[in-house]
Amino acid sequence: MSEVTRSVTELINEFAKMPGVGKKSAERLAYYVLRLNRTEALVLADAIRNVKENVRYCRNCYNLAEQEECEICRDPNRNREVICVVEQPRDLMALEQAGTYHGLYHVLLGRIAPLEGMGPEQLTIDTLVNRVRSGTVREIVMATNPTVEGDGTSLYISNVLSDCAVRVTRLARGITTGSMLEFANKEVLADALSGRQAF
Amino acid sequence: MSEVTRSVTELINEFAKMPGVGKKSAERLAYYVLRLNRTEALVLADAIRNVKENVRYCRNCYNLAEQEECEICRDPNRNREVICVVEQPRDLMALEQAGTYHGLYHVLLGRIAPLEGMGPEQLTIDTLVNRVRSGTVREIVMATNPTVEGDGTSLYISNVLSDCAVRVTRLARGITTGSMLEFANKEVLADALSGRQAF
Repeated sequence: MSEVTRSVTELINEFAKMPGVGKKSAERLAYYVLRLNRTEALVLADAIRNVKENVRYCRNCYNLAEQEECEICRDPNRNREVICVVEQPRDLMALEQAGTYHGLYHVLLGRIAPLEGMGPEQLTIDTLVNRVRSGTVREIVMATNPTVEGDGTSLYISNVLSDCAVRVTRLARGITTGSMLEFANKEVLADALSGRQAF
Repeated sequence: MSEVTRSVTELINEFAKMPGVGKKSAERLAYYVLRLNRTEALVLADAIRNVKENVRYCRNCYNLAEQEECEICRDPNRNREVICVVEQPRDLMALEQAGTYHGLYHVLLGRIAPLEGMGPEQLTIDTLVNRVRSGTVREIVMATNPTVEGDGTSLYISNVLSDCAVRVTRLARGITTGSMLEFANKEVLADALSGRQAF
């Protein structure tokens, strides 16, 4: 890197901080930017700037939003009786892409992970409880990640909500469509067996 | 993607244009930017902007530069009797990392590739010939990529220089034919530099 210009070195270093981008990839990305014309490069730079300036959390559900409320909370066609609880906005996006859920969401902005210093008070659980207490909600679908921390977070929240008149469910566990039974691990198969469904 | 905010969608689209970055990676990079604090994000945006505003080609050798001449051309410790000819600045960087070459460079900014409409007149060959004719140069080390086009470009240039009082060599075939120079490791490049052979 010794003889490349300072601006290029800085850009490579910034790219190399991004997740999944190593030194060689960062160099390739920097050369991509160098080959862009001026307008194209400014579009990229402004896209980064705009995200920081325009995007905030929805005041209801902590999804990403450009106004006080996110698009889902503002959508009059959404079923306001169901709230799906996820860890991060990207989990919400993945569920939206599946296209079969039409209720609201609640983004926790993390999961309970004591070893990383993340306790329940750092999540948006208080707001979730207030939303449930305020009335219309009849079902909470826990959709945290199927990990030790995700499961623990769901269990904690279901306990917190146990005195509310609300049904708490969680995503089905089982074998994944398109996978091979012989390669599924025993935990997956145990989930699939215990959760077996009638045809 | 339907329910993510417009700014985030734009950023994902911009990232997805980058080489080796697919839709999922672009989403991950956008979430990385969202998690950055404001200052860190602006550093990234400004790094992109600065590269476009500050970086130009060296007037001698077409390496990347932030002044009229690149750092290598300005370095008084460089051997001005040898010029190493490469296709792109990233090839120059790879050779510099090997750390065994102390002469000057000449960046062609491409290679002769008739099928892509790249002829010798679109490269910086004229400037190279002028540098050779102007005096002090005694050796030209051809370090184009070991591909059909790269070899052809080197052969073309060695013919153009045949009436100049200059020795034309090329990198030893320590580098493997069909691979790309920018991905070669520095040991291989060091071998190739020390074993360079007369045309």
